Amino acid sequence: MADTMSLVLIRHGESEWNKLNLFTGWTDVDLTEAGRAEAAAGGKALREQGFDFDVCHTSMLKRAIHTLDIVLDEMDRVWLPVHKTWCLNERHYGALQGLNKADTAREHGEDQVLIWRRSFDVRPPALEPGDERDPHVQEQFRDVPRDLLPYTECLDDTVRRAWPYFEENVRPELEAGKRVLIAAHGNSLRALVMKFDGLTPDEILKVNIPTGVPLAYTFDREWNVVDKHYIGDPATIEAKINAVANQGKAK
Amino acid sequence: MADTMSLVLIRHGESEWNKLNLFTGWTDVDLTEAGRAEAAAGGKALREQGFDFDVCHTSMLKRAIHTLDIVLDEMDRVWLPVHKTWCLNERHYGALQGLNKADTAREHGEDQVLIWRRSFDVRPPALEPGDERDPHVQEQFRDVPRDLLPYTECLDDTVRRAWPYFEENVRPELEAGKRVLIAAHGNSLRALVMKFDGLTPDEILKVNIPTGVPLAYTFDREWNVVDKHYIGDPATIEAKINAVANQGKAK
Repeated sequence: MADTMSLVLIRHGESEWNKLNLFTGWTDVDLTEAGRAEAAAGGKALREQGFDFDVCHTSMLKRAIHTLDIVLDEMDRVWLPVHKTWCLNERHYGALQGLNKADTAREHGEDQVLIWRRSFDVRPPALEPGDERDPHVQEQFRDVPRDLLPYTECLDDTVRRAWPYFEENVRPELEAGKRVLIAAHGNSLRALVMKFDGLTPDEILKVNIPTGVPLAYTFDREWNVVDKHYIGDPATIEAKINAVANQGKAK
Repeated sequence: MADTMSLVLIRHGESEWNKLNLFTGWTDVDLTEAGRAEAAAGGKALREQGFDFDVCHTSMLKRAIHTLDIVLDEMDRVWLPVHKTWCLNERHYGALQGLNKADTAREHGEDQVLIWRRSFDVRPPALEPGDERDPHVQEQFRDVPRDLLPYTECLDDTVRRAWPYFEENVRPELEAGKRVLIAAHGNSLRALVMKFDGLTPDEILKVNIPTGVPLAYTFDREWNVVDKHYIGDPATIEAKINAVANQGKAK
């Protein structure tokens, strides 16, 4: 058994609604061509740096699933087992889903939007039960226990589903020596990074994980982070981090 | 609980080596554009006829995995659970893998090739251990117990892995009321059809499952076939069945 454990996280590339600057949440929009290219670049970087995996996890949203598919295609690893779970879905954005981020900032003020987007424990307005955006009425989540599905979520809610999933499913795999790849979303990955790095709510809210760039963690057997680095070109990564941080402004 | 159980089989579309008329077996070649179009047509037909699924199974070979991915994309069901198993791989063609079917027919005679392709219990020549085509040395099958991996297979060998997989994994799902989709290969699907339909070795060898055309089975609770039909245009299906039957002739 190796002394260390290896986990790689990758955030999906640009989606159709990222491009339109809409609040997406659980809306199941696909990757754009640019998003597919980001995923391919991520997979290529992993292959070139000699990464390999034993098992993969992703959300039930196609922008993450397709990102994983593309990464595995690039690595010639489409035969790896893949587990899909709603617990790794993006944060549910409630009644904001489908609204334009800049319009919402103009209507409610940038400060209010920043609170919804960036506070740990303030939820956006909830969906009405039965709304077409309500996961309780969507085919996609028909196998998820009804009482677990949200009408809206703050980041804390996302942590409370993503982290237990990791603890119950991924942690035993890593401890058994498996190399794990997780393809997911900005906030479900934040939930994991917060726990791995021991960050406070304030600290995690300042972390912007760039899209399509693999983030490789190495843990020791006591779950200390012994290495953490992005796989790819540093200047590209820096530019991507800044681009994410600047979303949601009125202009 | 419904009185009947619903299972759909789909054989992958044209692969790069189908097109070149090479013996493929476990060689992990991808679909051609035509093969991708076949899969998309299969998925579209399933969607149009109102099919839905709860769980999917496929092989560890990318031509089947990609067929399934494309079908699920067409059905907007990429979030369904997918299990990948070597037990649903194509029959292993041993030392014939990579050889041209027509060349092999000219060298060994059409009769010999027909015996290798179409007898139930005669294996093609085995691979030498350590051959680059030997699954024991291929990364792809590193997690499969060594003693289960073949150096060559007859159809009977394929039945002896595909059927137990079905019995242990798929049967309980169907009996629990789940609707199952299996994307696999000519011979691993023959293995299942032989058992479902109670065919003799001679009978199953005459069955040619067309590529990319969903085959829908309905069973009663005693596993009698109460309905079995292809989903798609009858003339297209007939032409596809004949095309498969005519492979492996010298001209």
